[in-house]
Order: sequence, then structure tokens, then C-alpha cells
Amino acid sequence: MIRNVLVVNSGSSSLKFTVYDMEGEKKLASGLVERIGGATGANMVYRKGTGPKTEKPVQARDHAEALQLVCAALVDPESGVLASLSDVDAIGHRVLHGADRFKDSVLLTPETLASVRELIPFGPLHMPANIGGVEACEKIFPGVPNVAVFDTAFHATMPECAARYAIPDELRVKYGFRKYGFHGTSHKFVTLATAEFLGKPVDQVNLVTCHLGNGSSLAAVKNGKVYDTTMGLTPLAGVVMGTRSGDIDPAVVVELARKGMSADEIDTLLNKKSGLLGVGGIDSGDMRDIVNAAESGNESASLALDMWAHRIVQYIGAYFTLIGGADAIVFTGGIGENSRQARARVLSRLACLGVDFDEKANEEKSGPCFLTRPGSKVAAIVMPTDEELMIARDAYRIAREIG
Amino acid sequence: MIRNVLVVNSGSSSLKFTVYDMEGEKKLASGLVERIGGATGANMVYRKGTGPKTEKPVQARDHAEALQLVCAALVDPESGVLASLSDVDAIGHRVLHGADRFKDSVLLTPETLASVRELIPFGPLHMPANIGGVEACEKIFPGVPNVAVFDTAFHATMPECAARYAIPDELRVKYGFRKYGFHGTSHKFVTLATAEFLGKPVDQVNLVTCHLGNGSSLAAVKNGKVYDTTMGLTPLAGVVMGTRSGDIDPAVVVELARKGMSADEIDTLLNKKSGLLGVGGIDSGDMRDIVNAAESGNESASLALDMWAHRIVQYIGAYFTLIGGADAIVFTGGIGENSRQARARVLSRLACLGVDFDEKANEEKSGPCFLTRPGSKVAAIVMPTDEELMIARDAYRIAREIG
Repeated sequence: MIRNVLVVNSGSSSLKFTVYDMEGEKKLASGLVERIGGATGANMVYRKGTGPKTEKPVQARDHAEALQLVCAALVDPESGVLASLSDVDAIGHRVLHGADRFKDSVLLTPETLASVRELIPFGPLHMPANIGGVEACEKIFPGVPNVAVFDTAFHATMPECAARYAIPDELRVKYGFRKYGFHGTSHKFVTLATAEFLGKPVDQVNLVTCHLGNGSSLAAVKNGKVYDTTMGLTPLAGVVMGTRSGDIDPAVVVELARKGMSADEIDTLLNKKSGLLGVGGIDSGDMRDIVNAAESGNESASLALDMWAHRIVQYIGAYFTLIGGADAIVFTGGIGENSRQARARVLSRLACLGVDFDEKANEEKSGPCFLTRPGSKVAAIVMPTDEELMIARDAYRIAREIG
Repeated sequence: MIRNVLVVNSGSSSLKFTVYDMEGEKKLASGLVERIGGATGANMVYRKGTGPKTEKPVQARDHAEALQLVCAALVDPESGVLASLSDVDAIGHRVLHGADRFKDSVLLTPETLASVRELIPFGPLHMPANIGGVEACEKIFPGVPNVAVFDTAFHATMPECAARYAIPDELRVKYGFRKYGFHGTSHKFVTLATAEFLGKPVDQVNLVTCHLGNGSSLAAVKNGKVYDTTMGLTPLAGVVMGTRSGDIDPAVVVELARKGMSADEIDTLLNKKSGLLGVGGIDSGDMRDIVNAAESGNESASLALDMWAHRIVQYIGAYFTLIGGADAIVFTGGIGENSRQARARVLSRLACLGVDFDEKANEEKSGPCFLTRPGSKVAAIVMPTDEELMIARDAYRIAREIG
């Protein structure tokens, strides 16, 4: 019987984990190992259930060693939550990119894992770490099903007219250049949760979901399925993010190349030195710092906040229109769930779409909740996301399917 | 007294002209010299008033020679419209780029012309030809005021939050990387004409103006002023065009560079081989050909048309929302004024914004006209553009100001 699911999110130098008892979707334990392979040693954070977080320095030269430490903690007589490692019945892995190959989560077999490996060029930084997490689990949990849950998969329903770039098609065929979208696991979770919150069948719900965090993306969700999304071939496109530029005239990139910058230099500039960090003038891309600086009268931070809100309002209007009107605008992610100031900058500008913004609710309530007055033609909602739980659900579903 | 205005649009290998009697804004003559400097000789088209066009091969090695031919035609005893060249009282020149320097049309003095010359890097293909037209006119019409009318100027009212890219500000300071927008003369003309058509003062009119031609751009016009526009640093950004890609994930450009393409090659790819041409599969970027092919069942052409409409609907919704609602959506330009099929693809999807699309009017009427039923909350309008007249008006206004 499948009951306990381990969720693994293996990044370039970190390994996050959560263990669920899927009867009641109860979170048994969670934590992470960070600075894996770091010169000064790694660090491990562990939390049993909803108890306090404990933190300690550890030695973890690679992801396999990090996972060993996690396993030791999970079965520790005192802090542990499992009698033995054989109590892990399925493992869900966050995987960055499914390209046009994986349109749903998939059981990892030698064949499908080889297929995932072929997609490394779509995420040369993240994909090897994602796959490393799978390989470590295969060793430590022999015979336990591993399920890959792709950040792109929920967007696979996009129509071609949204997903294609207006460039010669040979570039799509040869290199896979098209829009894939990211944060799909989060957009899926909040779509399902919002449908339930609104009491509507998911296949009848029309939403603009706004995942706003350090990385941000919006999705147009028509009848429960993604119709368009702001991120593209990579997570660089779309709205202004913590350190990413979002959309710019592609000719700016051409000009940067013409001025002698290498592809790697431009990549770093647009992904790591731009966005709120590049504009805000306070050496931080963190929305909390930007809001504080703007409220203290810093003009660059204020401009950064205005730019951030401008692009989000732009895409909310765009997606509302593309799907022929929406039941709700949904906010999630670190900023979407927590920054009342940032949300207000957006929601105060949507009256023309029928959003009757409730400023008091925005100041006082926490998600899940409405940010619009009763009777608002279009609702605004805060819906906390839970990507780990979504991954666990998919792993649970697929592990049960194979029996 | 200022009365007759010559409008000159000097391109890389062509020179278009129109002569107006500004009392009554009467078009006296118009035409062009094309293939200037061409190996097989040039070609001249000339039209007196609303009479028939005449066409003849001519010799024109440069723009000065082309302008001489135009002048000869204008004072020809038979086909001419002026008694002598001294009847030209002012000259308006179309100039591509005013950068952040020229926010309105400007009288060309040695100082301002030198300043325009400094902007050649913003339009290395077009600006030298634009300036060449001015220099030719200075020789042939000594003492007659020359006025530069910039394609970017009407967009200069954009707030910083719309115009700035979320990249480090040193790139704006050093290279002028920001959004400028183009087709400003057309957006201005249709904004003024639509305000008049609606019987509203221009400073109270809120519009989404859609200039749809081989090159296309949309503008959000709030209280008569541009609030945002789709083109950017260059005319590459925004919606899908005849041969231009419009918006793509900037990372696509980075990837093309990484694969070894030079900046010039990428420039050519995105500006000349993309858009409807790149996607439609019929070796044409002309909307008429695309519509015909799509109606004949060509799937690639149909996809190209869907992509074209998708991005325009997206931006109409975006701009409607950014300006807090609009009085009207305005169509202009070759496609906007003439392609009923292309317009229908867009207008049939705007009911959620309050656009009560009148399909019959779209099929039967010609601009200026409404494409919405009486009582539609938001109007859709076809408003034919006239960039030459707008340039003539600006030249007339500025020439009169200096007496």
C-alpha cells in the first residue's frame, strides 16, 4: 500500500525534502541541506511536523551524502518520523523542464529517466541536480517508485498560437525554441485550490493566477487549463522579477552582443543583475527591501515597484482578455501571499475589469481569502501555494496507478 | 505667409513626397522616387491632386538628384502644381528616432540638425537617409524652414515605469537602452482624429490605438497622451509583424548567440525573416496572402494568423487595463483599415471588455466608421491614418511659430 511520500527538490547546491503521510495529507517532516559541496561545510535544517526547526552544520560533499543525512534524521529514534526507510512508499522529484516531451508527471523508469536526461540542454544548471536527486534516491530506496514532476507540465495545454514564437519554425524543430512556461506545479495547485474555494468544478473555472515571488509568472487559466503564461523558453521572460529583467525588446540583447558582450555575460546580466535588483538602487532584489526603501522615499526603489506593478497589471489585463473574462485573479507565492503593499499596487488598478478591491481585507486577512467585496464581478483571491504537496499528490497518484 | 508645405520621407533607397496647401489641408501633389542609386536606374511615381498616377524610369544616383526630379515635376508647366519652388513655404521631414532628446517636432537649425545627427546610432539604416533628405532640401530650398517630425516623439509622454527596462540603469545612461516606441506620427494622427470623431476633447479621450501594417504597434492613450506602446528601443518589439518576430523570451537571443550566430545575423533573422513570413510557410509576410492561404486551408498560415491575433488581443487587454478602461479601440494602418478578416479575428474576442462587435459593419463599412453597435460600452473604430498630413501640420505649426 502506498502511504508515505517523500518529496525531493534537488537544486545545484541544496536538497529540500518533505515527507507526507498521504492519508490526510499530513506533513510528517521537512527541511533542507544547503551549501552542498561548499568549502566551509554544509548546513542542515530539519523540522518534525509543525514543531520547531533545528539547524546544524553537516558534511555533505554531494547530493547522495546530503540525502543520507536526511534519511538518518527521518529514522532517528528521537527526531525521526519513520520506523525505517522502507516506510517511504513513493518519491516525487521536482524537475525543471519537460520540454514538449512530458505533459504530465511521469514514473521514472530507465527509459523515461534517459529521456529526461536528454533535456539537460533546456536547463543546464538545474537539470543535472534534479537528475542527481533521482539517482541518489534510486540507490538509497531500491524498488521505490520515483516520479518526476515537471515545472513545465501544467502549461502543456497552451494552444500553439500562444506557445510558438514568430520565428522560422526550423528553430523550434532544431532547438526546441518555443514557450514552455514554469512554476507549473504552483499554478496547478492554486488552480485546483481556487476552484474548490469558489465551489466550482475545475474544468469550469477561469482564472489569472499570479505566482509572485523572487521568480514570478502569471498564467491565463481557461476551464482549468493553461491558455498562456508569461515565462517562455526559460524563466527569464515575462514580468519584472527579483533579479531577472522579464520582457525586453529582443534588439537590446542583439545590441549587447554587438557591443562585445558574450552570451554568458548577457545571460548573467539579464538573469542575475536585472529586475528589482538592477533598477531599485539598493543592492537588493527582495520585495520587502524594495517596499521599505520606496516607503522611505527612495526614488529608484519606488520606480522599481512601479515597473513591477505596471507589468503585472499589463499581463492581468492581457490574460483576462485572452480567456474572455475571468472568475478571479489569484495571488500566490512569497510576494503574492505576503506583500500587502505590492498587492495593493496591482489590485487598486483593476476596477475597469470589474475587480471591486477591498483594501481593508488586503490589510487584515491572510490566505486563503477574498480581497474583493462581496458582489465583485471578478474576485481577487489570495491562495497560498504548496508545490511540495502538489508533487506529493502527483507521486502518490502515479505510484498507485502502477499498483 | 506660410501656406504650402512639402513633406519629405527619405528612406534608404527611396524618397516619398507630398505637397499640401495648408489652407484647407489640400493635397496638391504626391509621389515617390524609388530605387535611388539602383544599378538599373530609378523609378518615379507622380500624382497631381487626386488625379491618376504617372510612372517613369529616371536617373537618380542619390537623394539630391531624386529631389531635383521631384522639384522639376512640381513646377512643370503641365503636370506641376507650383508656379516656382519659392512657393514652398516650409518642409516637414519624417525622422525615425528622437531618442530621449526630442519630445516634439523641431525646427532644424545647424544646432538641432547636429543634435539629430548624434542619434544616428539609434537608427543606423534610416537616420542617415532621413538626414540626407534634410541636407538636399537645404540646398534646393535655401531659407525655407525644415522641420523634423520624429516617429518616437508622440510616445515621449510615457511614464518611466512603462519606458524603462528592468536592467541596470547604467545601460540606459550609457547606451540609451529604454523603450521609445515608433509610429508616433500615426498614433498621434488617429488619436486627434478619433477624439474629433467621438466629439470629445482630446485631453479627455482614452484609447487603444492599433497601427497594424507590415510593421505594427499598439499604443495605450490616456487623456490623449501615450501611456505605453508595444515597440521598444527598436521597432522589433511587440506584436507579430510581417517579417519581425515581436516579443520573444530574450533568452532565445542569448541562445542564438551561444550557438554562434553573430549580432548582425540575429538582427536579420528577427527583423527580416520572422513574423508572418517566418511562420506562415508561404514565403510571404503580407497579411493578404496569409489570409488567403489560411482561408484555403493552409495550416501554417492559419497558425500565423492565430498568433498575430493572439498578441494583438493580449495587448489590447493589457492597455485597456493599464489606462483604467478605454472609450475606444482604434484600428488603422494598411491591415487595420483594410483587412476585415484580420480585424474580425481580434474584435470577436473583446466582449469581456465591453466591445459589442458589429460583424456586419466590419464587413461593409469603410473608415472612419464604428465597428460596434450603438450602445457598445467600448467602441471599436476604423480611423484611416495620414502620417504625411500629420507631418505637414507639425511643419506648418512650427514654421508659423517662428514667423
